[in-house]
Amino acid sequence: MIRHPDTIAAPATAAGGAIAVIRVSGSDALAVCDRIFRGRAPLTEADGYTVHFGRIADGERFVDEVLATVFRAPRSYTGEDSVEISCHGSAFIIFEILRLLTASGARMAEPGEFTIRAYLAGKLDLAQAEAVADLIASSSRAAHALAANQLRGGFSRALDTLRERLLHLVSLLELELDFSEEEVEFAGREQLRETMEEIGREIGSLRESFALGNAIREGVPVAIVGTPNVGKSTLLNRLLGEERAMVSEIAGTTRDVIEERINIDGVLFRFLDTAGIRSTDDRLERMGIQRTMESISRARIVLRMLDAAAIDGNEAPGFSLRADQTLLTVINKIDTRPGLTLPAGALGISARSGEGIDELRKALRAAVDVEALYHGDAVVSSSRHREALDEAHEALCSALESLRDGRPTDLLSEEIRRVTRHLGTITARGEIASEEVLGNIFSKFCIGK
Amino acid sequence: MIRHPDTIAAPATAAGGAIAVIRVSGSDALAVCDRIFRGRAPLTEADGYTVHFGRIADGERFVDEVLATVFRAPRSYTGEDSVEISCHGSAFIIFEILRLLTASGARMAEPGEFTIRAYLAGKLDLAQAEAVADLIASSSRAAHALAANQLRGGFSRALDTLRERLLHLVSLLELELDFSEEEVEFAGREQLRETMEEIGREIGSLRESFALGNAIREGVPVAIVGTPNVGKSTLLNRLLGEERAMVSEIAGTTRDVIEERINIDGVLFRFLDTAGIRSTDDRLERMGIQRTMESISRARIVLRMLDAAAIDGNEAPGFSLRADQTLLTVINKIDTRPGLTLPAGALGISARSGEGIDELRKALRAAVDVEALYHGDAVVSSSRHREALDEAHEALCSALESLRDGRPTDLLSEEIRRVTRHLGTITARGEIASEEVLGNIFSKFCIGK
Repeated sequence: MIRHPDTIAAPATAAGGAIAVIRVSGSDALAVCDRIFRGRAPLTEADGYTVHFGRIADGERFVDEVLATVFRAPRSYTGEDSVEISCHGSAFIIFEILRLLTASGARMAEPGEFTIRAYLAGKLDLAQAEAVADLIASSSRAAHALAANQLRGGFSRALDTLRERLLHLVSLLELELDFSEEEVEFAGREQLRETMEEIGREIGSLRESFALGNAIREGVPVAIVGTPNVGKSTLLNRLLGEERAMVSEIAGTTRDVIEERINIDGVLFRFLDTAGIRSTDDRLERMGIQRTMESISRARIVLRMLDAAAIDGNEAPGFSLRADQTLLTVINKIDTRPGLTLPAGALGISARSGEGIDELRKALRAAVDVEALYHGDAVVSSSRHREALDEAHEALCSALESLRDGRPTDLLSEEIRRVTRHLGTITARGEIASEEVLGNIFSKFCIGK
Repeated sequence: MIRHPDTIAAPATAAGGAIAVIRVSGSDALAVCDRIFRGRAPLTEADGYTVHFGRIADGERFVDEVLATVFRAPRSYTGEDSVEISCHGSAFIIFEILRLLTASGARMAEPGEFTIRAYLAGKLDLAQAEAVADLIASSSRAAHALAANQLRGGFSRALDTLRERLLHLVSLLELELDFSEEEVEFAGREQLRETMEEIGREIGSLRESFALGNAIREGVPVAIVGTPNVGKSTLLNRLLGEERAMVSEIAGTTRDVIEERINIDGVLFRFLDTAGIRSTDDRLERMGIQRTMESISRARIVLRMLDAAAIDGNEAPGFSLRADQTLLTVINKIDTRPGLTLPAGALGISARSGEGIDELRKALRAAVDVEALYHGDAVVSSSRHREALDEAHEALCSALESLRDGRPTDLLSEEIRRVTRHLGTITARGEIASEEVLGNIFSKFCIGK
């Protein structure tokens, strides 16, 4: 991957608004813009972080009145000289200005190319650059919290700390190699093992956080377990209906509502279809039950739905949950049995009338702590990061084995270095990630970012 | 209409881009933004036309990294203190920032409210304000040329000149009234008539320009006249197909292609359906011919299509055209008669093979002089302006009649004033247009402009 010195341009906003912004970046950005911009003074003479009113003209022909904002290297998003042209939001004007810019020495930017340049200039590490795309795509509070956390570098700092601790171990081991003839042990083997195990646990908990990160990105999986007539779809329609009413209040936000994906107070939930559970010898039913068990094992929240008419106060769940799973027991159709005493911890609802639905929404929402994401520990949400952590973990286990087996110091040192390299691919700071990795990451970006 | 002193906020760009811009304007704009913006220094201390990097925060919770551009009254679009916040283009972030702004003392802006304020502050006259909406909506070169002409004030200046000349006449007439006992005639009646007639002609030609202005806005009407099997729809599909291919090359521009509306090199053409023309006694056919004649009278361009196999060199059009209409004679299916000598001025094409279509496109495009719009005379494109010109014209005719009838000077003077008032409603500069007029104009604007 070579550093592109040329000047790129792209629209940075969607068409259809009152105004549009066109970004220009590169060593010639100011001179290129000056070829089509008529202001009080040339942009090449302007200071960074200043705004200039003027006209875009094609020779003598007026194109638009615009504001041009000047950024000077290295104090810009890309680290290069940059101009943001704010014009009227007409598709024709955007097209004309881009046509004039490309005729004046710029070329159209590739998707994500502004952010690639920011990464190559050391303005962002790779994990932060990925967070930029997630932040732009974030349409819920939870997705925003995840991306904001990563953009602000919490995750990168956690990784850096781990790498630094590992590199310190490596340096101690290499010191031993320098003094190998004296058989000194700078790193006590017991101490070494403890530190490596502790780092292993930290890598492990980052890997585990992927379950939450992925749930937030893709929707928190909820298995609704209940007999077919217990009111599952009435409940889903009820939850969906409230969301739709809520969404319609927010002018200007549009969102594809995918069936069985429901946004509750900023968190996306994904409801998994299940069949009922009861003992049976029927082969088809047993397949249904197996599917239910699979849904339960994939869920973070199990919503067990019972019919108020059919409870006898002695319901055993018929399944067991892991520690990271939450069970919500919901008694539906409570309007059919007034005065019913609910089992401890159960929520009474009527999916048909809406009674108790607010409480259920709150209970679902409370099971996912989003606010903690803004302040709390790093959460892994990208498969690429998860894979790198898996590889780092594997390398660490192998290093621990070598340590146990008393294998040579140089081999041990190299194995620990391998762990740091795997961790390093996540942020890829100071080193240039491979063309393939960059291509994979940035092709998902929109044009103009 | 009172001047709103409060602070308004709205998104100025469409959602879905890499970045989004949120506009804030009003006497408290800077203080309102400072409540949620964390930069190096408060925006209330910043100079106009400067940009500031910082974070938007909801208390301790990070929302986004943004750029805030500060404008100081009166050097801003609205003439008020203003801030433009450039954030990541996520629907959630836009919503959050607007929520924080409204919680901090701003309110959501009405459609067009920023431009209403610009008008009330005397930054734009009413015709220019209307041009802003047209410019934003412009999706073709011709629509852009029209709006650009009007925004830059060409039309407003033409009207001002007419009004000044009329007001000069009024002042001469009123001087006579002051000296009425002496029976002086400051304004020679013959001279007065000549000037008024000349102004009448100028108003008349502005009124006539509406036909062109409207044609450019709505599509230049083209009547294709020809027998049913002459190849009309093959030709339309051919023209439409070339446009589609052209449009698909322009990444990011989307446009609804309405049947029989075809954009040729930046000008929208609207093809009118017609039946064939021949003498007949059949009542149904005669109705068809009447419809054809109506289409021809509505058209600016009449495209007369003949079949190469059926021309005998002696075709009379069967209809006559006005001076403002252009006739294009097209001989289709020339591939079926190689070596055919075309009648003078006729274009030979093959709608099926595409032969001659480029020449036809050029001929259609040459019939509408768009480049002149960027530099040339004012063109009326709004029905509101056309109506005001009609009323001004009527008032002027009535004033001329009074002049001919030798009616009293004070009545004449009042009638000429009436003309200036009608002209004045178009720009409404220096006076405040009625709530109803403003409501009609600005409700068509998008939010954020």
